Amino acid sequence: MRISELAATTGVPVPTVKFYLREGLLPAGETTAVNQADYGPEHVRRLRLIRALTEIGGVRLRDVGRVLAAIDDAALPLHETFGVAQRALRPDVAEEPGSDAEFDRALGDVDAALALVDWQVTGDAPARRSLARTLVSLRRLGWQVSVDDVVRYANAIDPIAADEVEAVDGGRPRTESVERMVVGTVLLESVLADLRLLAHEHHSGRRARRKGLTARRGRPTAGS
Amino acid sequence: MRISELAATTGVPVPTVKFYLREGLLPAGETTAVNQADYGPEHVRRLRLIRALTEIGGVRLRDVGRVLAAIDDAALPLHETFGVAQRALRPDVAEEPGSDAEFDRALGDVDAALALVDWQVTGDAPARRSLARTLVSLRRLGWQVSVDDVVRYANAIDPIAADEVEAVDGGRPRTESVERMVVGTVLLESVLADLRLLAHEHHSGRRARRKGLTARRGRPTAGS
Repeated sequence: MRISELAATTGVPVPTVKFYLREGLLPAGETTAVNQADYGPEHVRRLRLIRALTEIGGVRLRDVGRVLAAIDDAALPLHETFGVAQRALRPDVAEEPGSDAEFDRALGDVDAALALVDWQVTGDAPARRSLARTLVSLRRLGWQVSVDDVVRYANAIDPIAADEVEAVDGGRPRTESVERMVVGTVLLESVLADLRLLAHEHHSGRRARRKGLTARRGRPTAGS
Repeated sequence: MRISELAATTGVPVPTVKFYLREGLLPAGETTAVNQADYGPEHVRRLRLIRALTEIGGVRLRDVGRVLAAIDDAALPLHETFGVAQRALRPDVAEEPGSDAEFDRALGDVDAALALVDWQVTGDAPARRSLARTLVSLRRLGWQVSVDDVVRYANAIDPIAADEVEAVDGGRPRTESVERMVVGTVLLESVLADLRLLAHEHHSGRRARRKGLTARRGRPTAGS
């Protein structure tokens, strides 16, 4: 297909497609004439992947290139592409909130929680430091966050994450497995976060209705 | 304290503090002399809240004002501030990915899942449409995402969200409850997301080691 069709199929404007081509995020099409190239289904798929990462995952354009390179690098062990996806999702943060002592204490608590749930993670996992930063922020806002609280959250998320990892590997070709891993890491985070917000609304509404009933007529009667 | 001390205590540079004051995100200090004002612990707390929302929650500055106004508005029912926090976290998206038909189908699936888990949410909850958009993206990337998959994720997140809602209300003054709700919505989302990434690394590493053992020496022997 021509570039105009590629744009129409994916909903990505032609200038944006040209920008991705120039930046090397999208491989060049097959040249069919001067100033004309032919694009195939792999271009459609790659364009959709770029848009999903940037629009839903909030991945910055400069990190998208690294993620795509990891997907395309057949020599990179499957397990390590998780790290690449992680780093794109949790880019470096220049400054830590709070003092060094507060941050070190939080990092110690994160490691204590990881030891309690017996998760093996590398010390340079960006999520480990990102989690410690969030603990510092919560504490500075007056929250008492304990190692046990972190363990409770970890135990809640553990079966979901284990399922997700199992689902990625399934006798598929490597490129497909890696793409699934990256897409799953980014897009299913968004699914979980949205469901959590909807669950908040549900539980908070139920609580408000329960209180309202109690206030208006004492206990709700059977059948009400 | 003076503005320079406020900046030193919170780690927020003086020009940024002045910007927040001008934008009305931070209430003015008490004037003590010409060009000099006195700031108290409530300013420290508010500054930390603004930084946590923007840096960890990724809330845009223009949405921070709405969130703070909701926290300060004593007339707004506690339950409804969840909605305000939601809208700040899931700002409007201009365009839907995919065609109207794909989006409508995804929205129907989201509603079917919500009905199956029996969650009562309002039709204009931003997370409902945001979730449908993510389903469209996943499907366009070749994922078979069923109503049952959404239900499985919803069931996993339900007890966490229920606990969080219970924890917010606890005989605290209203402003404090609302602030806890907003902070919890934003910052605990980040905690959960980071733990999910760490769990991925753990489970994927375990899987890789298991496979490595199998490849090198057949089945791992007892005691290895």
